[in-house]
Amino acid sequence: MLGSLPSFARLVTELSKLPGIGGKTATRLAFHLLRRPHEEVEALATALLEMKQNLSFCRRCFNISEGEYCRICRDTGRDETSICVVQEPQDLIAIERSLGYRGRYHVLQGALSPLDGIGPQDLKIPQLLARLKDEKIVEVVLATSFTIEGEATALYLALLIKGAGIRVTRPAHGIPLGSDLEYIDSATVQLALDSRREL
Amino acid sequence: MLGSLPSFARLVTELSKLPGIGGKTATRLAFHLLRRPHEEVEALATALLEMKQNLSFCRRCFNISEGEYCRICRDTGRDETSICVVQEPQDLIAIERSLGYRGRYHVLQGALSPLDGIGPQDLKIPQLLARLKDEKIVEVVLATSFTIEGEATALYLALLIKGAGIRVTRPAHGIPLGSDLEYIDSATVQLALDSRREL
Repeated sequence: MLGSLPSFARLVTELSKLPGIGGKTATRLAFHLLRRPHEEVEALATALLEMKQNLSFCRRCFNISEGEYCRICRDTGRDETSICVVQEPQDLIAIERSLGYRGRYHVLQGALSPLDGIGPQDLKIPQLLARLKDEKIVEVVLATSFTIEGEATALYLALLIKGAGIRVTRPAHGIPLGSDLEYIDSATVQLALDSRREL
Repeated sequence: MLGSLPSFARLVTELSKLPGIGGKTATRLAFHLLRRPHEEVEALATALLEMKQNLSFCRRCFNISEGEYCRICRDTGRDETSICVVQEPQDLIAIERSLGYRGRYHVLQGALSPLDGIGPQDLKIPQLLARLKDEKIVEVVLATSFTIEGEATALYLALLIKGAGIRVTRPAHGIPLGSDLEYIDSATVQLALDSRREL
């Protein structure tokens, strides 16, 4: 039946390429879009094309950017001696939202994952090392995720960078604010106890 | 941060208008699309526009259609004296797949739902009644969903149509093929027993 509606079938195929959207959800979305006013579907299509046209990655730090350099690299008011290394632009956004950091960033666009065949050359690691040579960097904050891949990436980078006389740090592990001790996993509680502070 | 990337924010807004896709999923999808090759995003945008351009609803039965009349209404080999009433084009597809019906269809594009303010005028019911007058219909199969709204719609239509000397039927309730009795809800088992047949 849908085979006789090539433009519908094509939309379902394209939608099901999105992550987390299988054939059934794609069909449901396509039927929804079919019922929506023409302007709404056009707005979505235009938004897709304009995003792709206007956005790219910052030439220096690989954050998403509307120009050659991202807003943070263009901001002269930030600490130019510190680089915070994150995996994805989303992580950068989370750190910016916390207002806890005022330096520059470097987005690796992934983490080391030998099982998936992702090595240092597949990430923006060579570009990070080049920046460490060219810019006067005093501290590198390794804010990759606290997962196995993220920890491995941080460890790998720490070993690479430490020799160059640059301070290498990592955000502290511990109990999140507002959480009940009983619901926190024991590994986190253990780490938080290990790094206990004098009050 | 995303506020400084209007084309990204706009895409997230448009994506989160889709059913079942909230702000977080929309952001995740947008980041995914940002990383995909230009052609892939363009293919999705084109598929959206072409679907909207090429598809509309059949003038007679309100099934989705690439022309004025849908494939089924154009097919002269089908039984023209029978109309199967369904809620959505998806239901029509399910019935076609079963190969159990060779007549025409009428897609209501919804079901009666007073709580949501959906009355007979909001569905394609007036158009169905007009067809019953104009075409030589012998049987109407009410295949609306087996939900409260679907049952109510079937009952409403049965009362409207029965007077006109047309046979009104509804697909049988019963145990689905390949299912274990112990996992079927008791209301279905009761209905299946009520309609038991001689072997």
